[in-house]
Amino acid sequence: MRECLITTKGLSREEIVEVLDRASEIEMDPMAYSKSHSGKIIGLLFYEPSTRTRMSFETAIKRLGGDTVNMGTLETSSVAKGESLADTIRVVAGYVDAIVLRHPKEGAAKMASDFIDIPLINAGDGAGQHPSQTLLDLYTIRKSSGKLDGLNIGVMGDLKYGRTVHSLAHAITKFDSQLSFISPEGLRLPENVKYDLESSGSEVKEYTELKDILGTLDILYVTRIQRERFPDEDEYRKVSGQYRINKKILENAPKHLKVMHPLPRMDEISPEIDTTDHAIYIEQAHNGVVVRMALLDLMLKS
Amino acid sequence: MRECLITTKGLSREEIVEVLDRASEIEMDPMAYSKSHSGKIIGLLFYEPSTRTRMSFETAIKRLGGDTVNMGTLETSSVAKGESLADTIRVVAGYVDAIVLRHPKEGAAKMASDFIDIPLINAGDGAGQHPSQTLLDLYTIRKSSGKLDGLNIGVMGDLKYGRTVHSLAHAITKFDSQLSFISPEGLRLPENVKYDLESSGSEVKEYTELKDILGTLDILYVTRIQRERFPDEDEYRKVSGQYRINKKILENAPKHLKVMHPLPRMDEISPEIDTTDHAIYIEQAHNGVVVRMALLDLMLKS
Amino acid sequence: MRECLITTKGLSREEIVEVLDRASEIEMDPMAYSKSHSGKIIGLLFYEPSTRTRMSFETAIKRLGGDTVNMGTLETSSVAKGESLADTIRVVAGYVDAIVLRHPKEGAAKMASDFIDIPLINAGDGAGQHPSQTLLDLYTIRKSSGKLDGLNIGVMGDLKYGRTVHSLAHAITKFDSQLSFISPEGLRLPENVKYDLESSGSEVKEYTELKDILGTLDILYVTRIQRERFPDEDEYRKVSGQYRINKKILENAPKHLKVMHPLPRMDEISPEIDTTDHAIYIEQAHNGVVVRMALLDLMLKS
Repeated sequence: MRECLITTKGLSREEIVEVLDRASEIEMDPMAYSKSHSGKIIGLLFYEPSTRTRMSFETAIKRLGGDTVNMGTLETSSVAKGESLADTIRVVAGYVDAIVLRHPKEGAAKMASDFIDIPLINAGDGAGQHPSQTLLDLYTIRKSSGKLDGLNIGVMGDLKYGRTVHSLAHAITKFDSQLSFISPEGLRLPENVKYDLESSGSEVKEYTELKDILGTLDILYVTRIQRERFPDEDEYRKVSGQYRINKKILENAPKHLKVMHPLPRMDEISPEIDTTDHAIYIEQAHNGVVVRMALLDLMLKS
Repeated sequence: MRECLITTKGLSREEIVEVLDRASEIEMDPMAYSKSHSGKIIGLLFYEPSTRTRMSFETAIKRLGGDTVNMGTLETSSVAKGESLADTIRVVAGYVDAIVLRHPKEGAAKMASDFIDIPLINAGDGAGQHPSQTLLDLYTIRKSSGKLDGLNIGVMGDLKYGRTVHSLAHAITKFDSQLSFISPEGLRLPENVKYDLESSGSEVKEYTELKDILGTLDILYVTRIQRERFPDEDEYRKVSGQYRINKKILENAPKHLKVMHPLPRMDEISPEIDTTDHAIYIEQAHNGVVVRMALLDLMLKS
Repeated sequence: MRECLITTKGLSREEIVEVLDRASEIEMDPMAYSKSHSGKIIGLLFYEPSTRTRMSFETAIKRLGGDTVNMGTLETSSVAKGESLADTIRVVAGYVDAIVLRHPKEGAAKMASDFIDIPLINAGDGAGQHPSQTLLDLYTIRKSSGKLDGLNIGVMGDLKYGRTVHSLAHAITKFDSQLSFISPEGLRLPENVKYDLESSGSEVKEYTELKDILGTLDILYVTRIQRERFPDEDEYRKVSGQYRINKKILENAPKHLKVMHPLPRMDEISPEIDTTDHAIYIEQAHNGVVVRMALLDLMLKS
């Protein structure tokens, strides 16, 4: 495994599979790993809040026997005094064994990694990448379907601004699965992402209505359509209503269809789905721990 | 011990004694428990701040060899993005081995416990219950008096709104001790609490002046009278002044009287009491750790 | 080692050397100490934010096998409810094995230590002292120069308000090194500090221009000149510009000169210095961990 995990784009199929395989091993026998990084300390530098990601990284290192040191909220940190990211990252790199960084500016993770010689994991940098989210998505797909090739994967919602979706789409091009994109006209996949996917040999199929593709899907990955993307409330309500999942809509879905969501969800997926066999979004969130354990296990020098 | 600790009302005398006995054992030989839950992780979900309770739960699990993962302050959490308590609790339940929940809405703890299959401890839900506080109060009474039966226990201050007081009163009905309630007219015990206590066979004695009962008390449990309960400052000052404890007032108290307070205190108890044998409120706070260690020890699958 | 570390003034040469020697031992063989305080818990009570200091104390105790319990941000703590420092400190002292306190009021650490019988480390109290910063400064000087006697140490910047500088100067009087102070007229060392230094037998040399002394220095300790000390922006810019370090200025410095800074820095030291052999400020920050490990190791009962 490489020293730093900055983007999904840069990960090869082999590297992805290595992480997922390690995560599977950990899930099967967590006790075998429970002290494997005892004494190791991870620095959590979250320049913007992300409870879910932070808590699951924190759980991951603690499940490996290690611990964390947390920069805390921005308002109370040296950052508030105007310290540069370069200085902060170099100082903290002298305290800890690896750094998990979240930063609002695209490219921050790459820049930070150039200043230090300990492992760094990008936990999201602006419109940039969030590779550990993608790895847990892939892990969830593989775990529920038994494979990452030969699947029909639908991705629905805000495909224009959704960082998670772009990362996932890039990663799936490394496998032989078909991607279908379902969104309102105004929230389609950006041209550059489309171009990248097609350049890697993927066929990009786009739909505005879920029913046109639902019957053929193995996986439906739902993301949120954010109110602030629309000029007025009426337009938002009209559009977003069409991309909500409930029991009636899933009546026409294959029995084995699995519904995913990066969470938090608002009302994109009705709670009545939660208890059906389609729902794997809560399990998906849970998978964040073993996948991040696998990442840390591979990146930390033991 | 049951899976979840939601209310004091639901606890039997036997269950209470089981926790207090375990706490005593831990206090006598803490080293015997120092690694008993090594590798266990507790999720701290505090939807409203409570430094004291959070710090003592955190200390408790760490003294058992375990660790915590903390949701952090609300403003920076997924909750701020509008995620439901049900979703948050289900996700975190996949990370950790037990959850400690504090929530402003009465009934939140019960609701949350229905969604998960790991132990949950209610650390306060609105006007509802805060059972670990009551258990540490009982532990403190038993430790200082040697028993929970045959005592005269006075409870003074804001008896109308004081959640701590209601919980404690309910718990004491399971033992053969006499409760006396001392408060201003306007802050008397609510009728429904009084009804409950009397239904359990307790005699509810009410006083407006401490001196009328002080001479017979073994324990005096003082709580704060909050300024915001009164329409104007004058009224507040007149009333609250009568329910403050100082050395002069305690001249007429039995020598063995112990004074308790759930803390933080403002000026309900003069600092001059701190160094007298009457004062056990600091020790009472300290007891929070062993009592919470006992609770966690009994609830966590080992 | 004494029970509580409140000021640098009170530390003897022998006590200082004891801490630095222990820190050296830890740095040479950290694994020998990695479980030496397993099970110990440190309470972090930061009444004003200090990311750097908090993170390095947290790292230190965790590198010794122990753990922390953190009061958290002030807004969400009992302190916000008006609890006195005396009450908070006494309660927390019952939870933990030692306390690290930072408080905005001078004298708070001394006062707090009088209420408790566990070790307390002052991590800064207002215009008062911050002794662990001074110890890490001394450790850095000794590590880079091989000694603490026979050195020419220049201290530059805001010498009037700089707490770090006063602490360091007091400590250096215990060794046979020469101190030179470089600052604008208006930010000279206060008379009382000067008096103290001279009373301990030190010669206090003051300069307004770095070039007048630079050629003879072994160490140059740079501190920030804060904008808010000046009545207007123009005056600030004129003055502060003269106390900034860049490559051109250091052309006339001895080759072996080491440049230190307590961090965070703004623009007192140009980033172009970072990669020269003069720069030891990042390493200086890193030294905070072993020095605080040494302090905790000496103060905690094992």
